[in-house]
Amino acid sequence: MTSTNEQHEGPIRQLMLCAQIKEDTAALTNLTISHKQQLYLTDPVTPGSIFFLPHGTRLINKLVSFMKHQQLKHGFHEVITPLIYKKQLWEQSGHWDNYKDDMFKVEGTDIEKELYGLKPMNCPGHCLVFKKIDRSVGELPLRFSDFSSLHRNEASGALSGLTRVRRFHQDDGHIFCTGEQVKAEIDNTLTLINTVYRTFDLNEYRLLLSTRPEKYIGSVEEWNLAESNLKEVLETTGREWSINEGDGAFYGPKIDVLLKDHTGKEHQVATIQLDFQLPARFELKYKSSSNSMERPIMIHRAVFGSLERFLAILIDHYDGKWPFWMNPRQAIVIPVSLDKHGAFAEQVAAQLRGDIVDGNINTAAPLTGHHFHVDVDTRNETVGSRTKDAIAKSYSYIVMVGDKEVESQTISMRSRSSRKITSMTVDEAARTFVELEKKYE
Amino acid sequence: MTSTNEQHEGPIRQLMLCAQIKEDTAALTNLTISHKQQLYLTDPVTPGSIFFLPHGTRLINKLVSFMKHQQLKHGFHEVITPLIYKKQLWEQSGHWDNYKDDMFKVEGTDIEKELYGLKPMNCPGHCLVFKKIDRSVGELPLRFSDFSSLHRNEASGALSGLTRVRRFHQDDGHIFCTGEQVKAEIDNTLTLINTVYRTFDLNEYRLLLSTRPEKYIGSVEEWNLAESNLKEVLETTGREWSINEGDGAFYGPKIDVLLKDHTGKEHQVATIQLDFQLPARFELKYKSSSNSMERPIMIHRAVFGSLERFLAILIDHYDGKWPFWMNPRQAIVIPVSLDKHGAFAEQVAAQLRGDIVDGNINTAAPLTGHHFHVDVDTRNETVGSRTKDAIAKSYSYIVMVGDKEVESQTISMRSRSSRKITSMTVDEAARTFVELEKKYE
Repeated sequence: MTSTNEQHEGPIRQLMLCAQIKEDTAALTNLTISHKQQLYLTDPVTPGSIFFLPHGTRLINKLVSFMKHQQLKHGFHEVITPLIYKKQLWEQSGHWDNYKDDMFKVEGTDIEKELYGLKPMNCPGHCLVFKKIDRSVGELPLRFSDFSSLHRNEASGALSGLTRVRRFHQDDGHIFCTGEQVKAEIDNTLTLINTVYRTFDLNEYRLLLSTRPEKYIGSVEEWNLAESNLKEVLETTGREWSINEGDGAFYGPKIDVLLKDHTGKEHQVATIQLDFQLPARFELKYKSSSNSMERPIMIHRAVFGSLERFLAILIDHYDGKWPFWMNPRQAIVIPVSLDKHGAFAEQVAAQLRGDIVDGNINTAAPLTGHHFHVDVDTRNETVGSRTKDAIAKSYSYIVMVGDKEVESQTISMRSRSSRKITSMTVDEAARTFVELEKKYE
Repeated sequence: MTSTNEQHEGPIRQLMLCAQIKEDTAALTNLTISHKQQLYLTDPVTPGSIFFLPHGTRLINKLVSFMKHQQLKHGFHEVITPLIYKKQLWEQSGHWDNYKDDMFKVEGTDIEKELYGLKPMNCPGHCLVFKKIDRSVGELPLRFSDFSSLHRNEASGALSGLTRVRRFHQDDGHIFCTGEQVKAEIDNTLTLINTVYRTFDLNEYRLLLSTRPEKYIGSVEEWNLAESNLKEVLETTGREWSINEGDGAFYGPKIDVLLKDHTGKEHQVATIQLDFQLPARFELKYKSSSNSMERPIMIHRAVFGSLERFLAILIDHYDGKWPFWMNPRQAIVIPVSLDKHGAFAEQVAAQLRGDIVDGNINTAAPLTGHHFHVDVDTRNETVGSRTKDAIAKSYSYIVMVGDKEVESQTISMRSRSSRKITSMTVDEAARTFVELEKKYE
């Protein structure tokens, strides 16, 4: 099956494409919702890489901007780092020896034909950013965040929907700190994890400490110290935690967060990894208060983990019924008669969309403000059938305008889940939208 | 020179690294500012790929969110598309025959060893997104935007700073439309270009029509039609335009925007390219109002063009003195005595940072609000020396707090460019910041 195949088009074909590999019930529910809401596609020309359609992109962008704001609050500095690095960097980091089989190789078509690796992780790049500027203890803890594309060459048989992919994005971050700062940083990260998961009403998770694997770098003593550090912090959380022997990353032990979904299935999401190895391999140093050169400790951490996988969990969790603040379809306006009420419907939609998008294309949209995804259903169908369709597409709010509404300059609004229709001014509805977003509802 | 080299650290070394290739005056000014403001780095482990440091990332992110808001207003739908595609896709698009030498090849390390190309452009991916869903005329014009990483294998000798790179980002967009819609879409794009460049006080540019090159796909008749279409629109702009014979893309003619900087040097920035070829190669179709299947026309367009190159132009244009709204260093608070005024300084900075970041790490930061980059200079230096340093670093505003300010709960604020110090409340300063951002000043 290639992308030039003539039978390409059509919803069934898409569903088949998405469902081609793994077919357990959860995955199918996920695919059905993704298909119905047109969230994403895949294609055999790039197995394991997701094409996010406009509504799926809105969801991913919402997760990213949500996380960027949380990370600002937690003192992270975002950086943008390259995707390809010459083989020598991966040899230095230890990836070439320990991770090569999961990496894609990149080669120039010019005469030099240098060999690069397409990055599976951001850590070596962040080590370079740390190294190339003189650092002093006053800058620590130095926290970098990065939303780069990552590629891992998963076996094609293992690929499935959003959960087993080859190209993905993490809300990745690396903290460079002193030994004394480690515990506070891990504590803060656990606080951030808790705040984030609470926002999505995902409150059931447990912590898992993964220890030294068979393939590892560094000394057994360093590993023991790092593991006992993590155990100490875990003891103070009051949360359930356990040990997963031998499942650490090759460069250090880690705490994984295992999230339980409504079916009881557990998903590995957030991770916190302690690392003494990369700072040594990259010879990272900072100047201490007594002017000696010291080696920082590195903490790898992600809160969502893979954005793609986290989105898959959310699709299941909400069963496609997105809370208003996340919904890629926040409201739809239905004019009873297109001729008589169409213009008012467009005016209502424009106002509900917020203050970033106005009707004047000759001025620049402002940098800060509200933007809501509001459509108008101008199809020549009954109000009942358009309402049913809006509910099926999972719009949070359905706004109807007819004679009465045009005359009184009001709207009739109902939510997806209740048949109760409320009459209100457009201003009142707009304020409701802002309030819902503020409360993450 | 490798990244493990012992003499890595230090500012001189960085400047040398950045300046290693091209040394004309403009490039050096750009490098000096970038270095002084710590905007970005490069490293021989990945020539032509930029490491954006935190303050450079703030600038890029600002450009991206500015453009996302403009594109929302112009009816674009953002999509996220894969970075690697199998060779067959590039053969279908014509890139393998016409562009291969400028592409990076990607290969899996597994037994299949499939050959991929790392994308130099987003167009084939957007054609797939168009193709894989049944499209009808009611959806047109369908406008996709994409901020993906792109890679082009420029010769290593040609690499220079932010302007000649191998990895870059575009504010890329593709419009799929009917023949009747072409002129209006090009008109709107020229309006958007004008709005955007005006926001940056970049008002001197001219339009250049590039025609059929030696290597091209499609028929001469199609090229002539496309070229006459573009000439017609150019005639209506009232702007200076001229013809650049034979410099079109291999798939179609284009209008380039040539921006004149203060030295009189011209930079190719925005582009609008008309394309009848890719829709045919990908057999794109939409259902017309009479239910026949028709082929859409494709318009490739970018307003900034390369974000990296546009940033380089802005660094020169503003000579590093960023307007407040863009500045990665918007304000700095200087407590006269750290002991006596340090706490108040932190409180002032927290308030000036806006409403996204508050001091309570146990709550989620809101999704919408203001965020300003405000630092506190806690160094044990004189106020004069810290002020001088703040001006050198190009902070827009310098806020001083001493005995008088703590007592009256006010601040003394001056701008980077004026010695006049104004006393005001923190609320007044915060409102000033919001107003400046609103006016793009």
